[in-house]
Amino acid sequence: MTPPPPINMADVARAAGVSIASVSRALNGAPGVSEETRIRIKTLAEDLSYVVSPDASRLSRRATGRIAVVWPGLATWFYAEALSGILSSVGSAAFDVLLYQVMDDQARHRFFQELPARRQVDAVIVIAFPITDDERRRLELLGVTLVVAGGTIADYPHVRIDDAGAAQQAVNHLIQAGHERIGMLNTVGTWDLPFSAPRDRLQGFRTALAEAGLPFSDDLVVDLPWSSGPGPEGMNRLLSIDVPPTAVFAFSDEIAIGALRSLHRAAIPVPQGMSVIGVDDNPMAQMTDLTTVHQPVFEQGFSAGQLAMNILQGEPVQSPYLVLPTQLVVRGTTGPPDTRSPAWLGTRRHRRRPAAPQP
Amino acid sequence: MTPPPPINMADVARAAGVSIASVSRALNGAPGVSEETRIRIKTLAEDLSYVVSPDASRLSRRATGRIAVVWPGLATWFYAEALSGILSSVGSAAFDVLLYQVMDDQARHRFFQELPARRQVDAVIVIAFPITDDERRRLELLGVTLVVAGGTIADYPHVRIDDAGAAQQAVNHLIQAGHERIGMLNTVGTWDLPFSAPRDRLQGFRTALAEAGLPFSDDLVVDLPWSSGPGPEGMNRLLSIDVPPTAVFAFSDEIAIGALRSLHRAAIPVPQGMSVIGVDDNPMAQMTDLTTVHQPVFEQGFSAGQLAMNILQGEPVQSPYLVLPTQLVVRGTTGPPDTRSPAWLGTRRHRRRPAAPQP
Repeated sequence: MTPPPPINMADVARAAGVSIASVSRALNGAPGVSEETRIRIKTLAEDLSYVVSPDASRLSRRATGRIAVVWPGLATWFYAEALSGILSSVGSAAFDVLLYQVMDDQARHRFFQELPARRQVDAVIVIAFPITDDERRRLELLGVTLVVAGGTIADYPHVRIDDAGAAQQAVNHLIQAGHERIGMLNTVGTWDLPFSAPRDRLQGFRTALAEAGLPFSDDLVVDLPWSSGPGPEGMNRLLSIDVPPTAVFAFSDEIAIGALRSLHRAAIPVPQGMSVIGVDDNPMAQMTDLTTVHQPVFEQGFSAGQLAMNILQGEPVQSPYLVLPTQLVVRGTTGPPDTRSPAWLGTRRHRRRPAAPQP
Repeated sequence: MTPPPPINMADVARAAGVSIASVSRALNGAPGVSEETRIRIKTLAEDLSYVVSPDASRLSRRATGRIAVVWPGLATWFYAEALSGILSSVGSAAFDVLLYQVMDDQARHRFFQELPARRQVDAVIVIAFPITDDERRRLELLGVTLVVAGGTIADYPHVRIDDAGAAQQAVNHLIQAGHERIGMLNTVGTWDLPFSAPRDRLQGFRTALAEAGLPFSDDLVVDLPWSSGPGPEGMNRLLSIDVPPTAVFAFSDEIAIGALRSLHRAAIPVPQGMSVIGVDDNPMAQMTDLTTVHQPVFEQGFSAGQLAMNILQGEPVQSPYLVLPTQLVVRGTTGPPDTRSPAWLGTRRHRRRPAAPQP
């Protein structure tokens, strides 16, 4: 990967229409620059991801012995498990882990703005969320190693699953059971950025349908906020379209379990009236007898931590891209559609009734 | 709280039977001390929680701007949510968070052994697990502020719920529904130390029974490992005793949902054949229609972070002990026992049958 050209004082001076000496004075807090100019130059330098000299900085920086882990602060099984995996590799080695929570675009922006000022980590491990091109450029200028756990960001080293493949495993299972009208409960980030996991799983969903000669319909894909809560709402939306699906592929087990809740309230039997499959295989999937695609999450965190340490310590890395295998786990929530007596005929009455208030 | 008397070089010298100069040389790696003596002195100094001079160290230490969070690395909702709360208060202030994972006694011991050598945090926030008296003393000698989130350790500042009271809320609900034979699925730590939450919840369980004039029986309390998995096994054990309970109070929602799984497999209807209540009110409790006692977990983390920062910054603290309220949330898994036709009569046959293999 080729880093973008570093931005130096001359660039800032050119952009600000002042001398390099003025830029230097402004950034170092020396006298001889008006407050107004100082603020303007500082803002410009920040926008241009100014660093004194990226190469010099890279060489002169002593190792801090610290790795930053950035997570979105979603209290879901996936994030807790990935974090635990990272700490199990990194934390038990000589590295300390600085944990940063970025719950929204603003916090994410602040993290990447402030990181240069701190310069206190050797590497950043991002758990499954997207960053902007600007933020990437900032990291590259600082010479900070970036590793992604549970997804991809540009061509950075990462440990992930094959999200498209996992979706295909799930949807092929439904197709093989005889389903022809399949819905998807996907997720969108809490960020205004596209992220690889939902994008790739949607792609896998489409590929599986196409390979089976089944049509794809936008109506059957519902985008939900990225949390464990919105499963029931998503399922209700699929139930409210004119011809609902007979099976649903959910982005996560949490979403799938929420979908089951909605089906239970609507008195639609599972799997006869609706098959449901998730992704993750978290402990609650076992408890609710949910068919799902197992992904090794602790292991993704663990390997991402090892990858970051290997890169930092200059050890040989077989490949900076690790894709861990997923596995279909068939339990009780999937089966053939009940074509002789479609559950819909009997249950549409039910779901038109006002639903019981959500707990 | 009165810290124990600090241990200094003179104490180490006395214990080792060598001069103070030898201790100094041994600890500083200077020549003039045999390797054997060096090891003996270092070990002794460590055992005695040696620090150069606690008071001097307290005064001379500059603030690091960092807070350590120690968590047991359990990927449960409780720990992820509490961590997110801490990061939301501490992380958005001027403090960085160093995260340490201590999954067992050995890792916990290592953390407290190595903390002095690092001396790189101003405060330690422990999320809901116990530490030994030795470990406490070590922190006190170092002058590190300790705050507990989600439990108590000795008389350290903490933010928690009233665990005994929460248990009473749960068990009183069952008693009011008419249950007289109530079981408890409790938890033990992954540590060889007693922790406040299981101890206090068991106490609340006993108090509620006693106040209702109901007998307490050891048979009806099952201790499970501290994770989200062992609910089904725990329920199976309660089902296997001669006269099983008609209702069960579970330590957490995860344990309760596991118990529901076991009941489902044994074809015991809920709540007619068995009432189940948990503690937490996590998103999966909503999804599984579980009756539970809600506890504010994010808020416990958030307030523990604020408490730590206030103490560090010398701001007035109303009280170092914060107890946040809990609330009974009645859903579909609790109801009166079916006394006219006890589910047991009809279902004992079922549960004697070999259970279906666990997923």
